[in-house]
Amino acid sequence: MSADGDFRRIAIVGIGLIGGSVAFAARRAWPDATLIGIDRDDVVGAARQLGAVHQGASDLDAAAGADLVLLAAPVRQNLAALGRLPSLLSAPAVVTDTGSTKREMLEAARALPAHLAFVGGHPLAGAERGGIEASRPDLFERRSWILTPTPTTARAALGRVSAFVRALGATPVEMDPAVHDHVLAFTSHLPQLTASALMHVVGEAVGEAGLELAGRGLADTTRVAASPPSIWSDICVTNADEILPALDALTRTLADMRAELASGVPPDRVFESAGRWRRRLR
Amino acid sequence: MSADGDFRRIAIVGIGLIGGSVAFAARRAWPDATLIGIDRDDVVGAARQLGAVHQGASDLDAAAGADLVLLAAPVRQNLAALGRLPSLLSAPAVVTDTGSTKREMLEAARALPAHLAFVGGHPLAGAERGGIEASRPDLFERRSWILTPTPTTARAALGRVSAFVRALGATPVEMDPAVHDHVLAFTSHLPQLTASALMHVVGEAVGEAGLELAGRGLADTTRVAASPPSIWSDICVTNADEILPALDALTRTLADMRAELASGVPPDRVFESAGRWRRRLR
Repeated sequence: MSADGDFRRIAIVGIGLIGGSVAFAARRAWPDATLIGIDRDDVVGAARQLGAVHQGASDLDAAAGADLVLLAAPVRQNLAALGRLPSLLSAPAVVTDTGSTKREMLEAARALPAHLAFVGGHPLAGAERGGIEASRPDLFERRSWILTPTPTTARAALGRVSAFVRALGATPVEMDPAVHDHVLAFTSHLPQLTASALMHVVGEAVGEAGLELAGRGLADTTRVAASPPSIWSDICVTNADEILPALDALTRTLADMRAELASGVPPDRVFESAGRWRRRLR
Repeated sequence: MSADGDFRRIAIVGIGLIGGSVAFAARRAWPDATLIGIDRDDVVGAARQLGAVHQGASDLDAAAGADLVLLAAPVRQNLAALGRLPSLLSAPAVVTDTGSTKREMLEAARALPAHLAFVGGHPLAGAERGGIEASRPDLFERRSWILTPTPTTARAALGRVSAFVRALGATPVEMDPAVHDHVLAFTSHLPQLTASALMHVVGEAVGEAGLELAGRGLADTTRVAASPPSIWSDICVTNADEILPALDALTRTLADMRAELASGVPPDRVFESAGRWRRRLR
């Protein structure tokens, strides 16, 4: 650990869109830091060739000696990696993650030994195309990066992770992990489930010939349905208790609209409310 | 009517995004044709000022003498205008429309006298911003423009409307009106209802502060929810019998995903199917 709070040896577990973009942005911010990528051999090979990381391996052992470990794989892989870190890291180190659900991770982090300080994180940046090839150093610029400290989070570690994400171009925003999981169930997880359900239903109903007649509306509405399923499987499983009521709220609204439509009444109340909310979205 | 099949005097009823864009594109294609815009006074004023039309009025009477009447208002307004045309047009004329549902319009057009030849149409172009201010001459370029002839449609009129939309930059695609209404219920109407329901539910659940945390996923998925409600009210009412089963199919899929999620299983089957269909969308 350096005296000035910067990290010298950064291990990134999962070097897809998020991990790869962190690597590119970190190299730019701290040219002297050593970046270690941990992922499947082919991904590590690509990340090294692209210049995202200095070293890489498919085994978590490569994280040994890191003063920052950033877990950027799907949530359940991050959980598994977190459990192995105490046996790999003997010196003090900061551990953070970029997962889209926070409560399970925070719960698991309570088992870490005192020299490993965990700070939960979630950058609000993404794209429908994943993978190291899509990653870029400016992915986090002008984006919020949620940090989810708890009463037991080490304040020094929180300050260092906060400075780290700021140096990547993001704006750190502190939030309670339970609030995070509740809000994101609506703003992120429900839209994903909805877009996937819609795309599945439309594709099965009209087939490839029917899709030829689709305009920009369907394309926009279903864009996220192209996202990698593995990320979303883990989000669903680790936030099901928040996603289920969100799904139920959507189903109730669709049922209300159906009832109106069935009696010859257009669902104007929902159209108008939706229009008002949509205009408040940046 | 000119000998070469071109139109000389074109009345456009409803000069919003679609009607305005037809006007701009028609002026470019036929500099000698006279374009008449019919809409509210303020809209007509804006359309004249922007150079979209030569003449304009708020009353349908202004369509008298037209050899082409293009109905580009919301569907139920088009239906009302269609009923008044026989009393205004004594010479042979072609009547077409741009509405998003076709069966009711075709049914109403059966009552037209023989000298008014109706050809149903639907340009697959649009944007979440409506209005004459958003219209532009290239809106239809490389877009499909569905034409829905029936056994009673005059072939000469179909050929002239087909040439007309081609000159606007669009590709005419002939389709049965019932097939149109079935396919569009899935590819256009269901996405609109879904996006509106989602935006309403998310806004009500998390409020303005929560929306600050929304990323591009929610923004894309709900983009069409900003569309003008009046257009969608009419689409819903005139295609309810096709939209209801589409809504039911979506609700069934959401219920299946809910059941999986509630038992700890991620809805991977839908995620994967949706991903496959999404990649086939242009």
